[in-house]
Amino acid sequence: MPFILVSFLFSMLGMRANAQSAAPPQQNQINVIPLPAKVEPGTGHLVVDQSFSLSLEGATDPRLNRAVQRFITNLSRQTGIPMGARAAANRKALLTIRADRASKPVEELGEDESYTLDVTSSRATLTAPNTLGVLHGLETFLQLVELSADGFAATAVHIEDKPRFAWRGLMIDVSRHFIPRDVIKRNVDAMAAVKLNVLHLHLSDDQGFRVESRKFPKLQELGSDGLYFTQGQMRELVVYAADRGIRVVPEFDMPGHSSSWFIGYPQISSASGPYSIARTWGIFDPAMDPTREETYKFLDIFIAEMAALFPDAYFHIGGDEVNGKQWDANPEIQTYMRAHQIKTDQALQQYFTSGVQKIVAKHHKFMIGWDEILSPGMPKDIVIQSWRGQASLAAAAKQGYRGLLSSGYYLDAMEPAAQHYAVDPMSGDAASLSADEKPLILGGEACAWAEFLTPENIDSRIWPRTAAIAERLWSPEETTDIGSMYRRLVAVSWRLEWLGLTHKSSYLAMLGRMAATDDIASLRVLADAVQPVGLGIREKMEEAAGVVQTSATPLNRLADGAPPESELAADFARMVNALAASSFKDANAEARIRGQLTRWRDNDAALEPLLQSSSLLKELAPVSQSLAWLGAAGLEALEYLDKGQKAPDAWKTQTLSMIDQAKKPQADVLIAIAPAVQTLVEASAGLTPSPTIAAGSGKLR
Amino acid sequence: MPFILVSFLFSMLGMRANAQSAAPPQQNQINVIPLPAKVEPGTGHLVVDQSFSLSLEGATDPRLNRAVQRFITNLSRQTGIPMGARAAANRKALLTIRADRASKPVEELGEDESYTLDVTSSRATLTAPNTLGVLHGLETFLQLVELSADGFAATAVHIEDKPRFAWRGLMIDVSRHFIPRDVIKRNVDAMAAVKLNVLHLHLSDDQGFRVESRKFPKLQELGSDGLYFTQGQMRELVVYAADRGIRVVPEFDMPGHSSSWFIGYPQISSASGPYSIARTWGIFDPAMDPTREETYKFLDIFIAEMAALFPDAYFHIGGDEVNGKQWDANPEIQTYMRAHQIKTDQALQQYFTSGVQKIVAKHHKFMIGWDEILSPGMPKDIVIQSWRGQASLAAAAKQGYRGLLSSGYYLDAMEPAAQHYAVDPMSGDAASLSADEKPLILGGEACAWAEFLTPENIDSRIWPRTAAIAERLWSPEETTDIGSMYRRLVAVSWRLEWLGLTHKSSYLAMLGRMAATDDIASLRVLADAVQPVGLGIREKMEEAAGVVQTSATPLNRLADGAPPESELAADFARMVNALAASSFKDANAEARIRGQLTRWRDNDAALEPLLQSSSLLKELAPVSQSLAWLGAAGLEALEYLDKGQKAPDAWKTQTLSMIDQAKKPQADVLIAIAPAVQTLVEASAGLTPSPTIAAGSGKLR
Repeated sequence: MPFILVSFLFSMLGMRANAQSAAPPQQNQINVIPLPAKVEPGTGHLVVDQSFSLSLEGATDPRLNRAVQRFITNLSRQTGIPMGARAAANRKALLTIRADRASKPVEELGEDESYTLDVTSSRATLTAPNTLGVLHGLETFLQLVELSADGFAATAVHIEDKPRFAWRGLMIDVSRHFIPRDVIKRNVDAMAAVKLNVLHLHLSDDQGFRVESRKFPKLQELGSDGLYFTQGQMRELVVYAADRGIRVVPEFDMPGHSSSWFIGYPQISSASGPYSIARTWGIFDPAMDPTREETYKFLDIFIAEMAALFPDAYFHIGGDEVNGKQWDANPEIQTYMRAHQIKTDQALQQYFTSGVQKIVAKHHKFMIGWDEILSPGMPKDIVIQSWRGQASLAAAAKQGYRGLLSSGYYLDAMEPAAQHYAVDPMSGDAASLSADEKPLILGGEACAWAEFLTPENIDSRIWPRTAAIAERLWSPEETTDIGSMYRRLVAVSWRLEWLGLTHKSSYLAMLGRMAATDDIASLRVLADAVQPVGLGIREKMEEAAGVVQTSATPLNRLADGAPPESELAADFARMVNALAASSFKDANAEARIRGQLTRWRDNDAALEPLLQSSSLLKELAPVSQSLAWLGAAGLEALEYLDKGQKAPDAWKTQTLSMIDQAKKPQADVLIAIAPAVQTLVEASAGLTPSPTIAAGSGKLR
Repeated sequence: MPFILVSFLFSMLGMRANAQSAAPPQQNQINVIPLPAKVEPGTGHLVVDQSFSLSLEGATDPRLNRAVQRFITNLSRQTGIPMGARAAANRKALLTIRADRASKPVEELGEDESYTLDVTSSRATLTAPNTLGVLHGLETFLQLVELSADGFAATAVHIEDKPRFAWRGLMIDVSRHFIPRDVIKRNVDAMAAVKLNVLHLHLSDDQGFRVESRKFPKLQELGSDGLYFTQGQMRELVVYAADRGIRVVPEFDMPGHSSSWFIGYPQISSASGPYSIARTWGIFDPAMDPTREETYKFLDIFIAEMAALFPDAYFHIGGDEVNGKQWDANPEIQTYMRAHQIKTDQALQQYFTSGVQKIVAKHHKFMIGWDEILSPGMPKDIVIQSWRGQASLAAAAKQGYRGLLSSGYYLDAMEPAAQHYAVDPMSGDAASLSADEKPLILGGEACAWAEFLTPENIDSRIWPRTAAIAERLWSPEETTDIGSMYRRLVAVSWRLEWLGLTHKSSYLAMLGRMAATDDIASLRVLADAVQPVGLGIREKMEEAAGVVQTSATPLNRLADGAPPESELAADFARMVNALAASSFKDANAEARIRGQLTRWRDNDAALEPLLQSSSLLKELAPVSQSLAWLGAAGLEALEYLDKGQKAPDAWKTQTLSMIDQAKKPQADVLIAIAPAVQTLVEASAGLTPSPTIAAGSGKLR
């Protein structure tokens, strides 16, 4: 699995936020994410109550009919108003839907996804060239419906919308930890809600082979611990996604990341075996043997089978992180390389990839793979998915290759939504591409790698942050107001719970498990103030502590359940910023901050017995103490500020040094409110607050 | 639908609680509900960690294999420890499971459900005569696994368990509001968790016909608004339930409650029609025509079809609440009655039921129906489900008829779990049955009527209270310790969320909808302190206000979302009782009570702007004011108690009178903390606190 750590470009973000402070106000007036391409505010609003009705005109299409029924179900869920399953096809309908034609039987890359939605105070009209546009327009309508003092209503507005990029994906790794179908489905629902259109399933890796092959049944029988999708299930999932305007692109990682294949079929590997399912994380030696005809024969049969199972035109062969050790150690491979003047392992992988590409093409698919698959002589119809960055994509585009950005969209890095939002596929080296080359950048994909994912916490790792990435990929390039994005992100986050997503509810349930009770008030005071560290830091810390993570390691700690981005910390940072902006004169703001700091200071005493009673909470004792200390330090700083008295240097030095300590990860979490406390302390000592808080975004850094 | 109001027998409950205060302590040491028949505590505990394994011995049975896989999934969910799908069939397994034989292909009433579970500090053994017992034993094991300071572990214990009653059911009305399959399934999961074994589906009523008939397709096509189960879906649901040891008993209500049949098939009704789906609640005139041969021909074909679809041996024909108006108004029916010397509508219904019984028997089913179906001459193999009470059951048993109790188990009455728990099928007139007659009382069923149910709130109306009913029906008669029951009820309540039940999470989501934000702190202070009124009161209040409830009426108010039993009110009542028990000397208890009262007093100011901003919250303004007033009154009472000064008579009189006002329903909710505040006020005035709080149970009345 490609893994990167993107360092956060605070200054750039700050600039963006400032540059966008003069953004057209109407962009902020509708609570829709991704923000539509064109929004013209209307007058009044359209009431949505139990008399709601809709009519379907224009082209008929079973997928459209199902979409309309689903829309009614979702509108009913969102409002709590019971609604029948059938559209009332009458002329007086409140919402009229018209598609000019059905969309393609199998969705195509670049197919028209545009729609026009017109909402007045008396009716709404949704028109689109085809079903895809209707799907998107219905999601927009759902987001427009909000509760007011007068009931549920959609604000009057005229929207003309279409995506900026044609490929807007989410990759889910179902190999490292298996993610069952119902969990995938609810995530597909959420993808549709934010207009993503590609579900990329990472179906095989060293840790598991997750789809049934009938040609080579030992793949799943010996490579999955019984955890895999049957072909019937997969076919149903593909239809489920297609119904929501989402293509399903399968990935079978090769030649590396492939241990799980070799348990049943060692003959295609580069060593004699025997093999077993990998139980730990990292890069492993096993790789397919690129020098034997049998390997390609096997892949020909396998890819033929999977090409039939997955109707999409694109087929992902992975191709990342081959360490070459098996190749180096195999004399026959070495002999072959010499005979064919293949000088390096990299060249050998290129040779393999070239062979696989021909097989993929033979089965009428376009090959897609990670950066490593690109080599001179590859046909121009392949697609590069980049974990390396825009420079890699730009270089490929200059050679005529299409590309997708995933660098900067790795959800396991536990970065804030604003950081992902700032990553644009067309920025960096891509910005200097020619007008002919720019269209080769197809879009991007958020990536949910599964070392620390379970069916329980996956939603909270993906959502709501992926909605920010979805906006980056759908909305016009100049849509960069971080404050507006966060307001809409908060709104969509709780909307997603109506669709069955569990990113909020599972957090509370996991806290309940840790506490062995649902009386989690004091635990929540701590939990809401922290964030998990990113995968890279977590792996390093655990390595340093001599802990070996396996696929059976319990994922039930606070680091596994706490949301990647603390909303409370962001709120607190905003409060501190507002207080600072008032030169510490705003008594109301100060009282709120004081209340919050007091709660943190006093919480440890209440929480400590609980921490000691639970094996899952014990490790948090020092975190709780640090939080209490931070609360106390913040209160001391407020005292100095209150008195208008500059804090003594010795206190300042010592306190800042202790804050530095408190900012370090403990138990794989970070205390997310520490930077804002630091701001208070610095201000009390007469220092200009350090730029740990992005003033433009109001978000914690 | 039968509807009753059971008045709460406080004194009886109090006696029970007191009588049980000397219950064997070991009963309280395991957190299992229903409490097993025999529990012998062991020493130590069995650690459950990522090395957990199990082996399956004895009889093989595909249902058992699926149960084991499900058990592993559930254990994994509960603990957050990833576990493979396959049992490790090795001799060193931590849990050994052995069934002597497979259970019957179609579960039979009275089939052996017993099991023995032995847990030591080194291993666990589950044995049972058949698969059913294993299913129950696995659920017990899951409940035994708890988190401790040393990790997850099952306490060492020897359990020999079997049910007291063979029929332990939950009826779900899917007619008045349709409840989709996934919601039914998760409720089946919860039923299995508390060892209920009959899912009774109320599939047709005036408001909807909810299952596909291929013989008479207009039943669902015209009678359901498109909301019904296909036969394929129903078959799958029956298998799903059977896999969990749960029989599915279908109910088709006749001759009344049948408007939805007549839209497509008016020829079997007693008037000419045309008919439409009923959109309001109550008893309607339409009834089948008992005097025409065609009616029985229709039912013969229909019942043959449904008898094949539902494998269970019992077939429910409803039979309740026929008002006879169509019969009285139809001259041909009147002529027929005279010709056949049928003197009353009741006699005509008996005539009908007798005919239907013959059809049901012809298709190899036992007929079951509500009290009304009983008449002299009925064969003894029918079963009476009583909404009238134990006296009705006892009278039937004395005539040799079998019966089920549902009176006292109506969940829509919004009564506390303790009240349902106090209702015993063998109490009242049933207690005096002879030894031969007693076995005729088969058990009981909780009933979830759906006037105010949606997929969103149904879980919170059924759970956790139904777990108390499940204990009544499973555990030995002398299991009556209310305090113990509530402790275990709280535990199972949050366990159910691991199974996917949403009774807790949907409450928060609904508050979020009402508030149009997820910042619901102040709303929750109010919401946690109230309870919805029961269906009868709600209907009366709405009638008095001139509000016509329909099946399209939004069910998104606090009265629709708030749990039927306020846990906070129970906790508060317990605190007040403890303070009273200390003669108001316990400073810690007083500080907690004061804190809570202050929160209520001060909440209205914070909440009021939110209430005014939302159409769903406006109606709560007076409730919020009453809560604030109650907080203030409680604080005043505490002041008098603190000073050791008897509250003045004038204050007492006025305050108690205002509390009486505050106890009245507003916006279809009751302020559940009012009685405990009354206790404080009465105590401060030197009165003996009124028995509004059951001291024995610590629960609010």
